[in-house]
Amino acid sequence: MQGLKEKTTMPASTEGNGWSHVDTVQLNGSKEDLPETDSFVQQAMTLIMDEVVRKAGHASGKVCEWRSPEDLTKLLDLELGEAGEAPAQTLQHCRDAIHYSVKTNHPHFFNQLYVGLDHYAMVGSFVTEATQPSLYTYEMAPVHCLIEKVVLGKMMEMMGWVEGGDGIFNPGGSMSNMYAMNLARFQRFPEVKEQGLSACPRLILFTSEECHYSVAKAAAFLGIGTKNVYVVPADQSGKMIPKELEKQIRTAISEGAVPFMVNATAGTTVLGSFDPIEELADVCEEHNLWLHVDACWGGAAVLSNKHKHLLKGVHRAHSVAWNPHKMLMAGQQCSAFLVRDKTGLLQRCHSACASYLFQKDKFYDISCDTGDKSVQCGRKADAFRFWLMWKALGTRELERRVDHALEMARYLTEGIKKRDGFRLLMEPEYTNVCFWYIPPSMRKIPDSPEFWQKVEAVAPKIKERMMKTGSLMVGYQSHGINANFFRMIIISPWVSTKDMDFVLDEIHRLGADL
Amino acid sequence: MQGLKEKTTMPASTEGNGWSHVDTVQLNGSKEDLPETDSFVQQAMTLIMDEVVRKAGHASGKVCEWRSPEDLTKLLDLELGEAGEAPAQTLQHCRDAIHYSVKTNHPHFFNQLYVGLDHYAMVGSFVTEATQPSLYTYEMAPVHCLIEKVVLGKMMEMMGWVEGGDGIFNPGGSMSNMYAMNLARFQRFPEVKEQGLSACPRLILFTSEECHYSVAKAAAFLGIGTKNVYVVPADQSGKMIPKELEKQIRTAISEGAVPFMVNATAGTTVLGSFDPIEELADVCEEHNLWLHVDACWGGAAVLSNKHKHLLKGVHRAHSVAWNPHKMLMAGQQCSAFLVRDKTGLLQRCHSACASYLFQKDKFYDISCDTGDKSVQCGRKADAFRFWLMWKALGTRELERRVDHALEMARYLTEGIKKRDGFRLLMEPEYTNVCFWYIPPSMRKIPDSPEFWQKVEAVAPKIKERMMKTGSLMVGYQSHGINANFFRMIIISPWVSTKDMDFVLDEIHRLGADL
Repeated sequence: MQGLKEKTTMPASTEGNGWSHVDTVQLNGSKEDLPETDSFVQQAMTLIMDEVVRKAGHASGKVCEWRSPEDLTKLLDLELGEAGEAPAQTLQHCRDAIHYSVKTNHPHFFNQLYVGLDHYAMVGSFVTEATQPSLYTYEMAPVHCLIEKVVLGKMMEMMGWVEGGDGIFNPGGSMSNMYAMNLARFQRFPEVKEQGLSACPRLILFTSEECHYSVAKAAAFLGIGTKNVYVVPADQSGKMIPKELEKQIRTAISEGAVPFMVNATAGTTVLGSFDPIEELADVCEEHNLWLHVDACWGGAAVLSNKHKHLLKGVHRAHSVAWNPHKMLMAGQQCSAFLVRDKTGLLQRCHSACASYLFQKDKFYDISCDTGDKSVQCGRKADAFRFWLMWKALGTRELERRVDHALEMARYLTEGIKKRDGFRLLMEPEYTNVCFWYIPPSMRKIPDSPEFWQKVEAVAPKIKERMMKTGSLMVGYQSHGINANFFRMIIISPWVSTKDMDFVLDEIHRLGADL
Repeated sequence: MQGLKEKTTMPASTEGNGWSHVDTVQLNGSKEDLPETDSFVQQAMTLIMDEVVRKAGHASGKVCEWRSPEDLTKLLDLELGEAGEAPAQTLQHCRDAIHYSVKTNHPHFFNQLYVGLDHYAMVGSFVTEATQPSLYTYEMAPVHCLIEKVVLGKMMEMMGWVEGGDGIFNPGGSMSNMYAMNLARFQRFPEVKEQGLSACPRLILFTSEECHYSVAKAAAFLGIGTKNVYVVPADQSGKMIPKELEKQIRTAISEGAVPFMVNATAGTTVLGSFDPIEELADVCEEHNLWLHVDACWGGAAVLSNKHKHLLKGVHRAHSVAWNPHKMLMAGQQCSAFLVRDKTGLLQRCHSACASYLFQKDKFYDISCDTGDKSVQCGRKADAFRFWLMWKALGTRELERRVDHALEMARYLTEGIKKRDGFRLLMEPEYTNVCFWYIPPSMRKIPDSPEFWQKVEAVAPKIKERMMKTGSLMVGYQSHGINANFFRMIIISPWVSTKDMDFVLDEIHRLGADL
């Protein structure tokens, strides 16, 4: 492509080299004339292989190369200019981007509800990035329309939906939760699509205080309003209390508002708790409410014979959001929205029937054109990565990985209980392990507001040190009445008991002097 | 990873090889022990290099390998099973996915408002896929938070926003249009975030009949309702008529409703028309309406000194949606939402302040944590690909590419005018060239309902033949009173006048007997 640029500076008449120019615009020329492209892509692939696939996942390297925003701005050559640059410089940008990015595949990365991605999934993403399908129509994405259908079908089977249903992949679980909300209100008040909420009564949905913040964002975005999300208290283990839900439903009705949906969470963001879906389904049935299960994080438990009880009752949900890019490492974004309806609700709710994509006079079965089920237009082939890794690994290996992560969480929990200076927030149900580290200087202070005030400052300080050292990444936060604590998330099938021991050793090493 | 699976079938006590098992769960083991991974990724990269980078963009190959949904289902091995498979089989799935996917980088692919992607952008996407940043916080995506800011700033500069503004990358232009709608109503009625639309008057927005269907989808999704989107007539060249807009505004007011936003389109989906932004800005100012410009498709024209007049007045817009994955080939999804506000409107409108991500006691400048401006939670690093190709190519080369595409569209248009049997729908402003092909057997029939009824069947039939031949992909559609016509979209800097001639030759070849 360097070649192209050089050629544009040549005079208009360049006969003999096969290029012609009209009005300063070069008219001929094709990629095949550009060996530089080939060489650049080849070098970049080697770089990714060396610096990411081989190195970034090694325990011997750093999890992150922390630089402040000011310093990193100086280090990176960010400005966009009039002229291009040599491929070697562009490769250097790639090298820098890798170097200063968090190594999400590193065995000491426990910071988020995802870690890196499986290598099969990575290859799957390279295939879709290189080929650029877009899932509006079968014509434009034949392979991926079929694969999405198979993957959704299998996920529904895992949820125990014996009669199947419908679904779609979305750019993230927040979107899936929005889809649930939109379907729930449309099913109850179909006129909302045309007339909007100004033609509806005040609609109320219910979710627990432990739910993901996307529920509030969705309610604001969809015009429902955050105050019409009634927040139901959770018990000490972070589970929504069905009796409290019933109370809130009665309150809403007494106000003249119309309850329409309950959002249950399977795997809460902070504590990793699972709402009691079966009991919530009973309440929903009684009050004719849509039951959505936000299983973005916890959905993977259905793959494990040992742990699928956590989602007991999910076969009764009207819809489920499940992100294989979280626990299963399918790479962001890989977020499935599943709906048990089989009457075409998803299509009716979202369709706009654009004539330039969804022609009725096509020569193939247009039921394969799934794009109008989405509120997006172009849509990436997110199911492919997950399908490819599932094919490669098989369901049993996915199950083993889920079991491994939960077993590691148990091991870590026992370690926390045994060690001086570590205090567990609660027994984990999933792989969120929440705990405080109490430095030696504070260990003799009795539990009191002063004690917890001191504790509040510990995790942020240790976090700063671990980022600057680059040895470990674990998140922290305060939560309700609880002062700042570490929230450790275990996902990777490649972490071992040694890595768990390392986490506690390292936190102690970083915080012992506080 | 095959290795891993084999090991899980081994007995629990496997001392000596460094693996240990508890409760059938393997506890140790890391990726470094898996040479198969390395070899698989390496082979997959070679496959992508050979089959996509080197071959799929060649004019000598097919644009698509059409198979009916039934046949393709049989050809692909889609089912997901209990056991995994050998890496060679997984590679074969990748090969199949590439083979049966549309070659969006092929020089004869003119079907959508995007084609494949630039090779620098492709490499950029491999880097972000492999490293998996997520843009909630600076801590999690330091490089990409900075790069997104630089790219948005540069895009605003191109729009003539001398004082800058704010913005965010979204998964698609449909989302950006939703953002505009949500900001417009929030700015006017801030209470909508908490109380929802049931606390607002009936809100009305305006858009032309030529706008993208995402405007209707957005209105439905956001609870505004499709009937509250007032559709303004366009003139014969597809541009919204400002006087008709004023009429509609008066109608809305007379109904007691509240107009709040005008959606102008810069580059309409079918005709490629540009609404008269300057005049629409005058109307918006007079009536205190938010002016959003959907420049997803046409935004790239601002890069061209020759063609930027198409967006004259865009500096007065309140917000703009611009997708570099369309005309600029930055790879899907690369969709910027730009907002001229500098008071933090985007953040106030969308924020939920989740304590586990957006802690206030961080050790760095939290203004770099941009995630709460989004309605998503995890967000991909979509700006990076665009930034990387912009760095590599420079602004001048981007300009040259835009000019080249428009020049090709002119060349094709002249060809259509000259050739027997081709009829132009209208003079193109951008690179959408809309035309009919009239087979010889119909050329003597006078213009009449019967004639157009016959013409209606021509494009679908030729489309079927081009798909089955795999020689060419051009979209078709009916539009208003116009019978099915071809809508040809030109984007790639690598297509030449020869490719334009080929399109007309090939359509004639495929349809001459009809």
